[in-house]
Amino acid sequence: MILSIVGSSGSGKTTLITRVVPILKKAGLKVAVVKNVHEDFEIDKEGKDSWKIYQSGADVLITSQKKLALIKRIDCKDLDELVERYLNDYDLVLTEGFSKAGKDRIVVVKEPEEVENFLQGKVVAVVCDKEVEGYVWFKREEVEKIANFILEIWKKSF
Amino acid sequence: MILSIVGSSGSGKTTLITRVVPILKKAGLKVAVVKNVHEDFEIDKEGKDSWKIYQSGADVLITSQKKLALIKRIDCKDLDELVERYLNDYDLVLTEGFSKAGKDRIVVVKEPEEVENFLQGKVVAVVCDKEVEGYVWFKREEVEKIANFILEIWKKSF
Repeated sequence: MILSIVGSSGSGKTTLITRVVPILKKAGLKVAVVKNVHEDFEIDKEGKDSWKIYQSGADVLITSQKKLALIKRIDCKDLDELVERYLNDYDLVLTEGFSKAGKDRIVVVKEPEEVENFLQGKVVAVVCDKEVEGYVWFKREEVEKIANFILEIWKKSF
Repeated sequence: MILSIVGSSGSGKTTLITRVVPILKKAGLKVAVVKNVHEDFEIDKEGKDSWKIYQSGADVLITSQKKLALIKRIDCKDLDELVERYLNDYDLVLTEGFSKAGKDRIVVVKEPEEVENFLQGKVVAVVCDKEVEGYVWFKREEVEKIANFILEIWKKSF
């Protein structure tokens, strides 16, 4: 299942994700998060061997016993394609951003009226410290409730 | 095709790879490099959002228009499985290390007698500044020749 966590910059999307993930994992879900960045981000550390190899023009897969990192050039970023290709072994894929991809979403906002900027997919809930009408509504601090709500949606997705 | 670049630590594997990759790319090959690291490496930058998300327990896929980075927990690192899963869209996969995986290899050494430590697969060439007998032999600086040699092997692999 793919669920988007959308909202304006600085609204607390990352914080919300980092707080619900441990609860979702504890419930037994294997969770991946897709994060959309705009810039040509630098993930590896300048000067490291893997960085040098990437700079030479090769894509790079770094592996240890417990972890892998794949760093590669792409020329599209269609969400469904990426998830199918790289994340098909997860129970739940949360996206941070990707509002335009049209997936069901939890909208995180500071002001209730901002919700209207994120209607490109079905809004299953709104997270906002001010009261929001017309949607399932959680306050930012209600992390446990939000995680349980996601779990309920996930169970219904089968 | 998978080709391993093996040799003792400090023998110049990374340097060789970063020098042949541009030539191989110029020849039209899509090249990936698998780098084997022993430690629980830290790829992302502490404090960044993607780092925080990974620390919370989720695996992470970071994407921009031109680049992706997948950072995930794994519990095996069988080379064939990794290549099949993540690198099946490359013409050539070079591995740095992975000597025990038994793939055909170019052995990079400082002393000719070190070659015997890397015989777990077919040695197609040895790179060493001292003369090596019994193998196709290149000096470290013969980058163009080494790249062309790899291209020849690659062409024959079909």
